[in-house]
Amino acid sequence: MRRNFMLAAALTAAIAVSSAVAAADALPSWTDGKAKQSILAFVEKVTTTGSPDFVPPIERIATFDNDGTLWAEQPMYFQLAFALDRVKALAPKHPEWKGKEPFASLLKGDVKGALAGGEKAILEIVMATHAGMTTEEFEQTVKDWLASAKHPKTGRLFTEMVYQPMLELLAYLRSNGFKTFIVSGGGVEFMRPWTEKVYGIPPEQVVGSSIKTKFELRNGKPAIVRLPELNFIDDKAGKPVGINQYIGRRPVAAFGNSDGDLQMLQWTTAGQGARLALIVHHTDADREWAYDRKSSVGRLDKALDEAKAKGWSVVDMKNDWKTVFPFEKK
Amino acid sequence: MRRNFMLAAALTAAIAVSSAVAAADALPSWTDGKAKQSILAFVEKVTTTGSPDFVPPIERIATFDNDGTLWAEQPMYFQLAFALDRVKALAPKHPEWKGKEPFASLLKGDVKGALAGGEKAILEIVMATHAGMTTEEFEQTVKDWLASAKHPKTGRLFTEMVYQPMLELLAYLRSNGFKTFIVSGGGVEFMRPWTEKVYGIPPEQVVGSSIKTKFELRNGKPAIVRLPELNFIDDKAGKPVGINQYIGRRPVAAFGNSDGDLQMLQWTTAGQGARLALIVHHTDADREWAYDRKSSVGRLDKALDEAKAKGWSVVDMKNDWKTVFPFEKK
Repeated sequence: MRRNFMLAAALTAAIAVSSAVAAADALPSWTDGKAKQSILAFVEKVTTTGSPDFVPPIERIATFDNDGTLWAEQPMYFQLAFALDRVKALAPKHPEWKGKEPFASLLKGDVKGALAGGEKAILEIVMATHAGMTTEEFEQTVKDWLASAKHPKTGRLFTEMVYQPMLELLAYLRSNGFKTFIVSGGGVEFMRPWTEKVYGIPPEQVVGSSIKTKFELRNGKPAIVRLPELNFIDDKAGKPVGINQYIGRRPVAAFGNSDGDLQMLQWTTAGQGARLALIVHHTDADREWAYDRKSSVGRLDKALDEAKAKGWSVVDMKNDWKTVFPFEKK
Repeated sequence: MRRNFMLAAALTAAIAVSSAVAAADALPSWTDGKAKQSILAFVEKVTTTGSPDFVPPIERIATFDNDGTLWAEQPMYFQLAFALDRVKALAPKHPEWKGKEPFASLLKGDVKGALAGGEKAILEIVMATHAGMTTEEFEQTVKDWLASAKHPKTGRLFTEMVYQPMLELLAYLRSNGFKTFIVSGGGVEFMRPWTEKVYGIPPEQVVGSSIKTKFELRNGKPAIVRLPELNFIDDKAGKPVGINQYIGRRPVAAFGNSDGDLQMLQWTTAGQGARLALIVHHTDADREWAYDRKSSVGRLDKALDEAKAKGWSVVDMKNDWKTVFPFEKK
């Protein structure tokens, strides 16, 4: 009996050692600080057979915010840059926009003036540029824009403005049996055309904000048409609602960067057993941007306080990441 | 060159032969009729490397209706049976129901009288039994009911009233790299607690109707509360909308049994390349039920005409299935 027990223990230990796949080299762009250690320790715990914190692979749900967590969000959300470009592209078909805000200001190049109209102005811009076409037409428009539009600061494609350490983290989690999801305030149909190629996350694992759509037969051919009406805002308290609605299972790990992610992190960490909550803190004005409590884009204030109070992981981008963007690598 | 070409051809043929996993024995409860042949031929085509109809695994999305397609739906939708049982269970807390329709009739055992109020009555029953609790409380209620409630005709658990040939089909498709989804008019949170165990379909691959939910902190503890307000009806034209919203990719194969599935089948087959649309026709009054054009539950009328016109597969349950329910097997 004792021999059998020891054999079993040895086997368990062997499994434990090999369970966290390639932990040592999986996150080469992360310095060996607290953030990386918290990730490795969490994955070790939940993937080790026999561990009290073991989580079966089917329950290894990890949710990631997108803007500011997987790709950059400065100087403005990239989807807003898309919308502004679309206003310009569509202007010839809308002569009335010259006398109508927020379009008039936009077309004169005055983005600030256009956005001075607040949420109402943004909503009008979104509906004018995101609705009125079929889902397939919209998908093509997004693909075309991403293939050519350049980031105003770096001159890179927007899909190059993703965080190398987060790409490594996504792959590391997947290699350990996690299913990785995006849970973003961004438009779900703005993200789905490219998340598979860029992040390895297929469309059905992308949760986001949406407008209403309608199925119809156009000359006998089925089409799904995008309507100028909000359907769901996947932000703040909407994130756990979106997780419940789309995924139907509470994540064991969640990753965000702003107060918009606070409720997702609360919902995730309130589950039983080991949980990982991680916040990307933008602290690197040289390689990326430095902003938090007072930023209008990606404000990180309440969630930073709660992270400290609850011991969540906080990535200090400047010190925790050796590389920020893939194009920095030699 | 020619030798290389022949070698490549031989290799391709070898792959082709092995590509449709275990086709011969994968569907033992299906007789060797047109329906089974159409399934095997389709899977062979889309999984054969080099075939003009080859579909990469990541795009092998298959969507299944639930009521009447994966499990039975007579003499009433099982979720309605759940709701009626809940009314009885909750009645002591609602003395006012004795004087209020549709509850008064229900509590007297007069289901027909209660449902005479049509959609409004059903909606009142659903909201009274499906809303007002947290998502976790509701999940537990569903699990408890399924563990004990019996089907009025067979005396079996409702989760035993699933179709053996469809269980085989789900497994066969998955073994060929398909990702299987439920797309049902039923409530998504009524299905998710058991679809993984019964069908091998995890919660995040279940699309269904839903009521609105709200995230809140209850004494500092996060909860998602179910509200008495419709969110989304995943039926008829709602099915392609639900597919687009939740999955974000057009299926290559879709399975249904009623007019509620027509638009899903239209949307699926309108995509480019090989597509499979299949309808389960309830033709077996002895082993199951026989109903179609005039049934109030699971009416199959327009979709049956369209299936004939467009050459979709139609399962004649009586002749195409050797076994209907798993408990029939010796």
